[in-house]
Amino acid sequence: MKLMRVTSPGDVLQIINEQFRALADETLPLEKAGGRYLAATITAPEDIPGFDRSTVDGYALFSGDSFGASESMPAMLEFAGEVLMGKPAPPINNGQCCLVHTGGMLPAGADAVVMVEETDLSGSLVQVFSQVAPAENVIHRGEDLKMGDPALLKGSKLRAPEIGLLASLGISSVRVHRRPVTGLFSSGDELVDYNAATLGPGRIRDSNAPALQFLAEQLGTEVKHGGILPDSFDSFLEKSRSMLGETDLLVFSGGSSVGSRDFTARTMQELGKPGLLVEGVSIQPGKPTLLANCGGKPVLGLPGHPVSALNIFSIFGKAIIGRLAGQDKPGFEPTVKAVLTRNISSKSGRTDYIRVRLEESAEGLKAVPVFGRSGMLRTLAEADGLIIVPPAREGISAGETVEVRPWE
Amino acid sequence: MKLMRVTSPGDVLQIINEQFRALADETLPLEKAGGRYLAATITAPEDIPGFDRSTVDGYALFSGDSFGASESMPAMLEFAGEVLMGKPAPPINNGQCCLVHTGGMLPAGADAVVMVEETDLSGSLVQVFSQVAPAENVIHRGEDLKMGDPALLKGSKLRAPEIGLLASLGISSVRVHRRPVTGLFSSGDELVDYNAATLGPGRIRDSNAPALQFLAEQLGTEVKHGGILPDSFDSFLEKSRSMLGETDLLVFSGGSSVGSRDFTARTMQELGKPGLLVEGVSIQPGKPTLLANCGGKPVLGLPGHPVSALNIFSIFGKAIIGRLAGQDKPGFEPTVKAVLTRNISSKSGRTDYIRVRLEESAEGLKAVPVFGRSGMLRTLAEADGLIIVPPAREGISAGETVEVRPWE
Repeated sequence: MKLMRVTSPGDVLQIINEQFRALADETLPLEKAGGRYLAATITAPEDIPGFDRSTVDGYALFSGDSFGASESMPAMLEFAGEVLMGKPAPPINNGQCCLVHTGGMLPAGADAVVMVEETDLSGSLVQVFSQVAPAENVIHRGEDLKMGDPALLKGSKLRAPEIGLLASLGISSVRVHRRPVTGLFSSGDELVDYNAATLGPGRIRDSNAPALQFLAEQLGTEVKHGGILPDSFDSFLEKSRSMLGETDLLVFSGGSSVGSRDFTARTMQELGKPGLLVEGVSIQPGKPTLLANCGGKPVLGLPGHPVSALNIFSIFGKAIIGRLAGQDKPGFEPTVKAVLTRNISSKSGRTDYIRVRLEESAEGLKAVPVFGRSGMLRTLAEADGLIIVPPAREGISAGETVEVRPWE
Repeated sequence: MKLMRVTSPGDVLQIINEQFRALADETLPLEKAGGRYLAATITAPEDIPGFDRSTVDGYALFSGDSFGASESMPAMLEFAGEVLMGKPAPPINNGQCCLVHTGGMLPAGADAVVMVEETDLSGSLVQVFSQVAPAENVIHRGEDLKMGDPALLKGSKLRAPEIGLLASLGISSVRVHRRPVTGLFSSGDELVDYNAATLGPGRIRDSNAPALQFLAEQLGTEVKHGGILPDSFDSFLEKSRSMLGETDLLVFSGGSSVGSRDFTARTMQELGKPGLLVEGVSIQPGKPTLLANCGGKPVLGLPGHPVSALNIFSIFGKAIIGRLAGQDKPGFEPTVKAVLTRNISSKSGRTDYIRVRLEESAEGLKAVPVFGRSGMLRTLAEADGLIIVPPAREGISAGETVEVRPWE
């Protein structure tokens, strides 16, 4: 029996990074571009803010007029009216002040704003009970961004703050990388469509297809599902080739049997150069993972067990999709801290992903391992997340604080 | 000037939990139900797996036939053929064995599987070099789930593993809570549509609208944007009432000026009972936050500053949306650990959200505070995430390890 050459998870991620490139770019209206990565740096076409603005509700004044003012010795200023929101502010002279709202325009002649809580208006006189420094409570024209400054760099992800920043500059369309389209196939003679009402002997439903489709959509791709592949190699290859032609990434699921795994590996060699790159990963669950570069397009062969397939897709599928979408460095992997309730053992030299349930307790969060084979989807459905045991460790002891990656 | 009664962030979350209920349920096909919450417990309509299966590639046998087998003293068994995937397995007798693939059906007469690596086939004889225990490498019918067992409880979130589990049971439609529809309004006389090419004096673009819309979509709601509200109270109220009638949640953005804040608060009192519940939160940025329950529907008034508005929506908007969608306990908030590079100060009694950039360094991740006023969206766009300084602390010192919530 041929031994499987295994690659470490870190090396697989590096291969993904080296072998694949961001997809072509396209122009989208800003409101459709959330979650995308910028294909070019955007410079500010104007100053933000476009005028000197108050950051509080108060009175705009010349700061020198407030020097020395205190509760017992207020400065007395002449009330010169109100700055209306969205309107130009009339200028003021020394000794005068103007009511201004948060975000309102600073009048010419004023260089600071005193908060309304520090003042008292009676008739046409404003008493100011504390002194303000020049520029206090003011944001100056261009202080957030100056015209011509880079507003967002190439490769930036458009999250809500970036969408807002571009909108504030009046930028209503952007060049972003295309979202990858994923082609998904299932294989394995035991599989029937997951909608099947009854099962023949030895048959199981193709549960990976809808689970992987949802996970792929969560990761930001559109999915084309090609159904269950036939058990003839020629038509397996033909359908794969046709799907790869209309997608950016091909994923094979369900090939746990020797036959479908062999078909998948042979197909990866036939679909394009350089072909198969990874034929096993030192990871549990998920060792029998295949990865190929077929003419520049990634092709991923998932292990057959459902838990393994989802685990591998959430790690390497995610990395591939990020790379194609234009992500230029891996995202941060946030975790939840919890105390492990039971010893877990792990084989040295292998990265283990342990399913855990998170439980509140008087002493804080506890991580309770959910044991069970990688064929048992229920164990992943019961888990809130995963603990990673690195290859150098042979296990983690009960009572240790662990970092749990929540599964969303 | 009227003082604002402030509520702690924890109390606001409790108010949200107590005041609002999950929306009505609807039946969806499984492939459209990802991310939803179950409105009823689902019991397994059949056993999973539906038959005894091998978990490895190997030979199915009666375990007793392997007892005492070793490298030097192999057991010799008669090769009785292959179990084809998706086909019923022919029975075997003691002294016989059958080739079986991962996931293949265990033949009657066999109670275990020996891995193919531990065997050698020559002609019609299989040598078995190690002994296997009863049930070894076998998953029994119903071992993952038994017919009638609860497969998923009411309130479960349908993540990829749950979708897979239901698909494996042949469940192709589910009762889930409806996704909330969010009505979004902007207000403030200084605002113009964010697509405006040029700005009049004192004017700014309504950058919150597209940023909040994307954030709300990320949080799982559909958004109806009602545009910028007029500055007459009657039409402000009329438009709000009409929008609330066709949505599950109303959000007002941009009312930083006294006028629009007053309009928002008055509208909350008019739209339905019990009306305004929160008129300020001890949080920074985001203190001038309003929350109301108008006839059972949540109405959220966001602070005007863009950073504050996004911060508040990502905390309280998220909690409201989760509650309406059927989430029955708050999700875990995963964080990234990093070492703070500069002292940050914070006012005691207030929960501070500090924007930080994460930077890789030889000593690990560093959290670099991004200082700047809450009106400056660029500061949030430059940040990878937020550090929370709890009310009991007056700051965090450089060199301390902090937990950063990534902003995605």
